[in-house]
Amino acid sequence: MKTATHYLTFNFPRRRGLVRITDQVALFVEESGIAEGMVLVSAMHITAGVFVNDDEPGLHADLEEWVQRLAPGPAADDRKPGPDYRHHASGEDNGDAHLKSILVHHQVIVPITKGRLDLGPWQQIFYFEFDGRRPKRLVLKAMGE
Amino acid sequence: MKTATHYLTFNFPRRRGLVRITDQVALFVEESGIAEGMVLVSAMHITAGVFVNDDEPGLHADLEEWVQRLAPGPAADDRKPGPDYRHHASGEDNGDAHLKSILVHHQVIVPITKGRLDLGPWQQIFYFEFDGRRPKRLVLKAMGE
Amino acid sequence: MKTATHYLTFNFPRRRGLVRITDQVALFVEESGIAEGMVLVSAMHITAGVFVNDDEPGLHADLEEWVQRLAPGPAADDRKPGPDYRHHASGEDNGDAHLKSILVHHQVIVPITKGRLDLGPWQQIFYFEFDGRRPKRLVLKAMGE
Repeated sequence: MKTATHYLTFNFPRRRGLVRITDQVALFVEESGIAEGMVLVSAMHITAGVFVNDDEPGLHADLEEWVQRLAPGPAADDRKPGPDYRHHASGEDNGDAHLKSILVHHQVIVPITKGRLDLGPWQQIFYFEFDGRRPKRLVLKAMGE
Repeated sequence: MKTATHYLTFNFPRRRGLVRITDQVALFVEESGIAEGMVLVSAMHITAGVFVNDDEPGLHADLEEWVQRLAPGPAADDRKPGPDYRHHASGEDNGDAHLKSILVHHQVIVPITKGRLDLGPWQQIFYFEFDGRRPKRLVLKAMGE
Repeated sequence: MKTATHYLTFNFPRRRGLVRITDQVALFVEESGIAEGMVLVSAMHITAGVFVNDDEPGLHADLEEWVQRLAPGPAADDRKPGPDYRHHASGEDNGDAHLKSILVHHQVIVPITKGRLDLGPWQQIFYFEFDGRRPKRLVLKAMGE
């Protein structure tokens, strides 16, 4: 049995944004030498999401609008706090980002088959930042043989 | 250590629908010979979900209404596109299905204990189609000993 | 390869509530003797959630309001049923709790690195009850070496 661990760091200039990380995950799996198993892709912060979906800019714009509709927050490039949340009594201004993280979920598992990520033809892995403007980490953990 | 991989294919006649797949997952685990471990049940398309919940028709009707309320789309049997999304500029008419996939999540992990799916008494595994009328795949990946 | 299994039981006096379970999961992992691997934390009922986020009371109040907004149900201490759902035709009054479970998701995976939960500095694991007033179970399954 083999395991491997790796960390990625993101630093977005705005509150929100997303980036495709399929290539980084695939490279990590290749270097792990694992032929059959699973890789966990998991945000280490509580104001970020990880999801698998299409690499299409219109969809990404839809996603930005959708997370804002279901968990309203400030505009992505707004320095002022947005709608009020009880969490803000603690001195934070990112209450929306916590809810967005739970909405999108903060992790995915990708199967590894014959040494490769066993994804469908349109499946790409994305990191979704909800409270950027500082370094944020993500953990990759692979397990298999 | 043992691993096993299997693929299921679904072809729903309408845009949306759901089907219980607990028995297929249980059979796959039994055939894998894994007594202790985990099985990943993961849609390979970006317009489908996988969830664990109750096998009760009223709940399934509630779920259909709920995903339509939070990520509105065309009626399940409507050939016309529904609400407009930016994703539709790419020629697609299934923008809602991508958001529904993220809302419901596209995968679950089920523990395997003493050779069986370690589910609670009411837990059943479902595939939730959000953009049918064509073949869609799902991957089962088991790992353990 | 090692595996370990453990069950936790919760019995909330009200319909809804949440409790931090990071310490129980960490103790379970320590006792498993697994140094590198993953632990699955998964509700065994279909009216509960598991999530990773901040241990901050304002956020927890925000979460209670948010799940009520996106999947409306009775007040947490209300014995009367809340908004009607089709599921209630089966004799239940917890239709909202099923939707909340799917919204929040019922499980997380935590990587195990050097014998410890590989969580970010603010990440805590929570069990989120949506239909309490009776014993509810959760399964912990660890796998690794």
